[in-house]
Amino acid sequence: MTEWPRFNMAGGPVEVPDRTRRDLSKPVLYHYDPAFKELFGHTQELLKQVYRTEYDVIIMQGEAILGLEAAAAGLIAPGDKVLNLVSGVFGKWFQLFIDKFGGETIELAVPYNDAIDPEDVRKALHANPGVKYLSVVHSETPSGTHNPVKEIGAIAKEFGVITMVDTVSGLGAEVLSPEEWGMDIAIAGPQKCLSGTPGLSLISVSPAAWDAMEKHPNPVRGSFLSILDWKTAWLEGNRFPYTPSVSEMYALESTLTQNLEEGMEHVAWRHQTIAKAARAGAKALGFELWPVREEIAASCVTAVKVPDGFDEEKMRGLMRERYGVMISPGYGDLYGKLFRLGHMGVAAHPTYLAAQLAVLERSLHDMGQKVELGAGVGAAMAALDDWTSGGPT
Amino acid sequence: MTEWPRFNMAGGPVEVPDRTRRDLSKPVLYHYDPAFKELFGHTQELLKQVYRTEYDVIIMQGEAILGLEAAAAGLIAPGDKVLNLVSGVFGKWFQLFIDKFGGETIELAVPYNDAIDPEDVRKALHANPGVKYLSVVHSETPSGTHNPVKEIGAIAKEFGVITMVDTVSGLGAEVLSPEEWGMDIAIAGPQKCLSGTPGLSLISVSPAAWDAMEKHPNPVRGSFLSILDWKTAWLEGNRFPYTPSVSEMYALESTLTQNLEEGMEHVAWRHQTIAKAARAGAKALGFELWPVREEIAASCVTAVKVPDGFDEEKMRGLMRERYGVMISPGYGDLYGKLFRLGHMGVAAHPTYLAAQLAVLERSLHDMGQKVELGAGVGAAMAALDDWTSGGPT
Amino acid sequence: MTEWPRFNMAGGPVEVPDRTRRDLSKPVLYHYDPAFKELFGHTQELLKQVYRTEYDVIIMQGEAILGLEAAAAGLIAPGDKVLNLVSGVFGKWFQLFIDKFGGETIELAVPYNDAIDPEDVRKALHANPGVKYLSVVHSETPSGTHNPVKEIGAIAKEFGVITMVDTVSGLGAEVLSPEEWGMDIAIAGPQKCLSGTPGLSLISVSPAAWDAMEKHPNPVRGSFLSILDWKTAWLEGNRFPYTPSVSEMYALESTLTQNLEEGMEHVAWRHQTIAKAARAGAKALGFELWPVREEIAASCVTAVKVPDGFDEEKMRGLMRERYGVMISPGYGDLYGKLFRLGHMGVAAHPTYLAAQLAVLERSLHDMGQKVELGAGVGAAMAALDDWTSGGPT
Amino acid sequence: MTEWPRFNMAGGPVEVPDRTRRDLSKPVLYHYDPAFKELFGHTQELLKQVYRTEYDVIIMQGEAILGLEAAAAGLIAPGDKVLNLVSGVFGKWFQLFIDKFGGETIELAVPYNDAIDPEDVRKALHANPGVKYLSVVHSETPSGTHNPVKEIGAIAKEFGVITMVDTVSGLGAEVLSPEEWGMDIAIAGPQKCLSGTPGLSLISVSPAAWDAMEKHPNPVRGSFLSILDWKTAWLEGNRFPYTPSVSEMYALESTLTQNLEEGMEHVAWRHQTIAKAARAGAKALGFELWPVREEIAASCVTAVKVPDGFDEEKMRGLMRERYGVMISPGYGDLYGKLFRLGHMGVAAHPTYLAAQLAVLERSLHDMGQKVELGAGVGAAMAALDDWTSGGPT
Repeated sequence: MTEWPRFNMAGGPVEVPDRTRRDLSKPVLYHYDPAFKELFGHTQELLKQVYRTEYDVIIMQGEAILGLEAAAAGLIAPGDKVLNLVSGVFGKWFQLFIDKFGGETIELAVPYNDAIDPEDVRKALHANPGVKYLSVVHSETPSGTHNPVKEIGAIAKEFGVITMVDTVSGLGAEVLSPEEWGMDIAIAGPQKCLSGTPGLSLISVSPAAWDAMEKHPNPVRGSFLSILDWKTAWLEGNRFPYTPSVSEMYALESTLTQNLEEGMEHVAWRHQTIAKAARAGAKALGFELWPVREEIAASCVTAVKVPDGFDEEKMRGLMRERYGVMISPGYGDLYGKLFRLGHMGVAAHPTYLAAQLAVLERSLHDMGQKVELGAGVGAAMAALDDWTSGGPT
Repeated sequence: MTEWPRFNMAGGPVEVPDRTRRDLSKPVLYHYDPAFKELFGHTQELLKQVYRTEYDVIIMQGEAILGLEAAAAGLIAPGDKVLNLVSGVFGKWFQLFIDKFGGETIELAVPYNDAIDPEDVRKALHANPGVKYLSVVHSETPSGTHNPVKEIGAIAKEFGVITMVDTVSGLGAEVLSPEEWGMDIAIAGPQKCLSGTPGLSLISVSPAAWDAMEKHPNPVRGSFLSILDWKTAWLEGNRFPYTPSVSEMYALESTLTQNLEEGMEHVAWRHQTIAKAARAGAKALGFELWPVREEIAASCVTAVKVPDGFDEEKMRGLMRERYGVMISPGYGDLYGKLFRLGHMGVAAHPTYLAAQLAVLERSLHDMGQKVELGAGVGAAMAALDDWTSGGPT
Repeated sequence: MTEWPRFNMAGGPVEVPDRTRRDLSKPVLYHYDPAFKELFGHTQELLKQVYRTEYDVIIMQGEAILGLEAAAAGLIAPGDKVLNLVSGVFGKWFQLFIDKFGGETIELAVPYNDAIDPEDVRKALHANPGVKYLSVVHSETPSGTHNPVKEIGAIAKEFGVITMVDTVSGLGAEVLSPEEWGMDIAIAGPQKCLSGTPGLSLISVSPAAWDAMEKHPNPVRGSFLSILDWKTAWLEGNRFPYTPSVSEMYALESTLTQNLEEGMEHVAWRHQTIAKAARAGAKALGFELWPVREEIAASCVTAVKVPDGFDEEKMRGLMRERYGVMISPGYGDLYGKLFRLGHMGVAAHPTYLAAQLAVLERSLHDMGQKVELGAGVGAAMAALDDWTSGGPT
Repeated sequence: MTEWPRFNMAGGPVEVPDRTRRDLSKPVLYHYDPAFKELFGHTQELLKQVYRTEYDVIIMQGEAILGLEAAAAGLIAPGDKVLNLVSGVFGKWFQLFIDKFGGETIELAVPYNDAIDPEDVRKALHANPGVKYLSVVHSETPSGTHNPVKEIGAIAKEFGVITMVDTVSGLGAEVLSPEEWGMDIAIAGPQKCLSGTPGLSLISVSPAAWDAMEKHPNPVRGSFLSILDWKTAWLEGNRFPYTPSVSEMYALESTLTQNLEEGMEHVAWRHQTIAKAARAGAKALGFELWPVREEIAASCVTAVKVPDGFDEEKMRGLMRERYGVMISPGYGDLYGKLFRLGHMGVAAHPTYLAAQLAVLERSLHDMGQKVELGAGVGAAMAALDDWTSGGPT
């Protein structure tokens, strides 16, 4: 049997705190047990606090790709014009959903190491009257970049455009709010910056988005993909459209509670601070960052450019097999072009970062690369002048 | 906060053994960690053993309703004739999927307290040439009845009809095999007789079913609903179409292992034996069973007719609130007409049954019903002459 | 490998709630970690609340026999007169400690199915001037009886006698208080009525007892047996005399918290009520109770007399092996003379009692005994007219 | 509430693997349940394998200080001559036990940063005819040193002297065997190099030691301190002398299994290799090691000399409070003179070591010390040229 890693510092699912896993293991309740219904309702309220929203929130019972497809299915009708912002693999992927549901895609794309300029969004909306929806990925995990969603959202609102925001790895990395950021439908996952388990979609829905779903010529109902089913059944009827994943809900309640106990400001600051340190570490080892400039670097993972001729598979293999540290390669088209240091949730902490960089350095050394052992760790630690404690233990 | 129950003896999700919940709480791995991929593959092999099949099996990452919708979506094309066998709420519900995907339903229905007669299936297939699919619910949890799927499957095979079998609460209640029972696509859930956690669909797919999905005029691909995505990505490409629910997979591996350790024959025998005892207990208390005859009574739950004028809500409320035992009411159209004693998984054991019946009796007494305390328990225990140990602890 | 039981309804260690076991599994801290010291101190405060005392409490790091020996070792000097009250195996056993530490035993004994009469204590103290200590077992688990410690304590106080009270299975079965009950040194265990894990001694110490220990001609110090070490090191110095059992302390904090959340009155009432029902159940099956009269029957276990010629080993074997229910035989001299139904902690609940009695009945039937199945359960349930919910889940 | 640390890298109790803690949380069995007795017996066999012995092993139900006191109590009679080897706090402490039980101490001492020279033992035994016992601490955790027990044991055997060996933190740090090392009574703890939970004493007893205990003029019996009770009750009678700590036994079974799965050679090699790297790291930061020469440095912790005027309390406080890493100070007389890097069990791994050193460096920097961030980590990693995977995950 393959030995398990010491540390999971991948691009998600990430390590889950012990406390959350203990809560995950609570006795399994019948979903209509009053104690479970209470827990579900309470968790929904916690999610509102994490999202800082008064909008309805929906917890769909499948990982975030379900929420993304459900949003597209629920909103996009044949012929609807969708401005799709593409700065990475996930942005591009969203077009498949637009196509599937008959939308007409207007693409605004940048290279996968860059971020969308809000002014280009304004121009695109000017140039394309009749755009109904705008889709954007807040945090492009595969590229290690993030887009200025707050600014983009404001522009969309000027044009009366409904936004669909993939903030799967964005929630927790920045303090955000659907209302303030102009996010009509936002989809997040527990298994990224929140340090939870995979298996759920965390969705916030604005009144405009509900309205659009209900006025859809062929509303999605009676389906695992239906967000409206959750509105009718659960929000309005206190029934479940189908059996929820009971244990995952225990974990989510725990996850949200812990993030709120820490405070979303600290959670976000912690991710940003460790990301900055990770970049310092990578650069000190002579690597180039994948993002064209640091301001657009994500806080969930640090994408590092693979130097010409460098065997990054071998490096990751050594890190994982010899030293027990799992990190992520590039995803999809980016495979082989970059690798990613992970620092989400529990791992957004100096200890994890130091362990990760030390093992990276040591693996480079094992490969015969010229590396000053300790240089990356030292640079990262030097970037932590204002570190304060807090976060999942 | 609402007090939690002592025992969950509902219609599912059911109680999950301590061992499974400990396994559920293992550290969360990145889904592309070699240890996780190995575990996923191993779990798939275990599922084949539980299903006693050489067919491909697919583990979809959402509760069984996802598998059912996915099967319908993947197979049924507009105009396809589907013989839908209806003996309960779930059988009737399936028509919604047939409708959604453009199928033409031919319904063969019996009252919701009865089971399908295989000969009626033969007649229906004779009378309706061109039927492409047959859909049937093996174990109608809401009615506490089961259909003779083995006989029905044999007839379908005579006619070259592809079968879609909802065996969500059937797997584990009988020793079955897709090949021997003529099940082209079978969907089960871990959270019923297997005593696992909800959140996954356990699907077996025959070559004929794969063929039909691939020849569908508009194959479902690039969707959370796609079974084909799992074939292409995972079975053929060793990649995941999306992020699996890592923790649920730990629980599933544990659940399947425990069922195989016990032996599927013993698992099935245990459910059948306790169900027989539960019926004896209910009858001894003067209740009538909901199914028209005992041979069609399910082994997952025992559906009991609500006597005229009897306040079954109050009874269940007392059982749950005063004595900590959660049982299920009727579901959908059957609400108020029956209640259900639960005996799946862990609860398919004399101790659980005795506790449940004792609390039922005591609650009846509290309501002012005339009841001989101990009569139900005694009759149930009397039905256990050949009891042998074994099963989840 | 031997199959594990479904239910542990023995004389202790008893079943431990899921919540406690989750807490037990928290990450192990260094004992001088500030978080652990805080937890230790907090747990001590909780213990004071459970004991309803302002006296010092000491948590020794070994099961209650350690606390009992430590009390004897710390108090009894050669030549000290000890009035030892004997109503069972544990009472008699204590004399070994008196002997070991050089005390002079004055025994006041009753048969092992009876309880001490406080007036006999008064007489004994009159008849034996110069008695320094009185030792008594509050709840004689082996006999299923309890002694009137409150009355005995009051008399001891009249005579200025220092009391040593074994309330290992008494704490939780009655609402008690060292001050009000005249208990100078009381020793309890978490693994009985409190439903915790074995491995710790819960001790309360009056000023008089401290004084006696300190004035002992040869005070016990520098030993695992020393209570004074804990006073000096921990209470006065905030250091540990040796490494505490970190995980057991997590479990204890959880155990005490849960008992306080339920309320000690309800905990005690629950034990007493279920014990009464257990006696009704046993009698309805034609058994005689072991205690000479019900008023002295303990609330922790129900001791049942073994009828002449009855193979109680076989009965317990069937209960455990075939039906997964573990109960206790007689202990020491009482082996073969009685068996004990267990109803402590989690098991002090109608569901557990019903399961236990149903399995008892069924096992009798399997042995060829004439038994009306359900009679015991029914009688027990009939005794629960005023049952209210609450207690560990 | 005090925030918990991320990593416990103290001198023990140490971090316990997730797997062990899951096993710890299994349902609590009655100690006379056949499944528990089987587990206890099995665990004893595992302990023999870990100890590599055919001697009897005894698992006492209290942390190792209990085993040490029990050994002294069981063996030493008034007037017995004991050669006590003292190279640190724990060696010195043992004299208290010799005194308590009336032995006559002959001390062979070296400074607390040095180790015993076997030739001095030979000289002492020559010079002191009639020595009956030799006591020695294998691994002096407070000093971070170890003694050459194998050589010392061989000399003792030449003189017919019975040895008492404190190998609490030695078992696992070296591959040892009581027979080959001449250890008559050896006492280890699970909570050190084996990475288990505190609360048990792991004792191996040679026939000569049994003989001495039985021939003791006043054998210890009927006491929590009695090793003979365990022989009579458990080894010979299959009964327990008192209630064992059930959950701790689950943890121990798991701990021993995991160490054997890894292989004791690898366990020992892992500790030695990481200890070497830790020393390299500390030296690279300009610290001096506490032991006078590296050959005597222990593998459980690395003791580092506190430079003159350096505020080591402040440093540890920063490490713990700001960065979540708990390490140990000096103990007893050594407080303030040294601090200790911990690397036992789980923490004997490059990741943990890197995290620890990085946080140490950063804390020094925070204190205004001149430190090249990364230097210690780099030097430690450089010392891991032959690292191989394996060990607890």
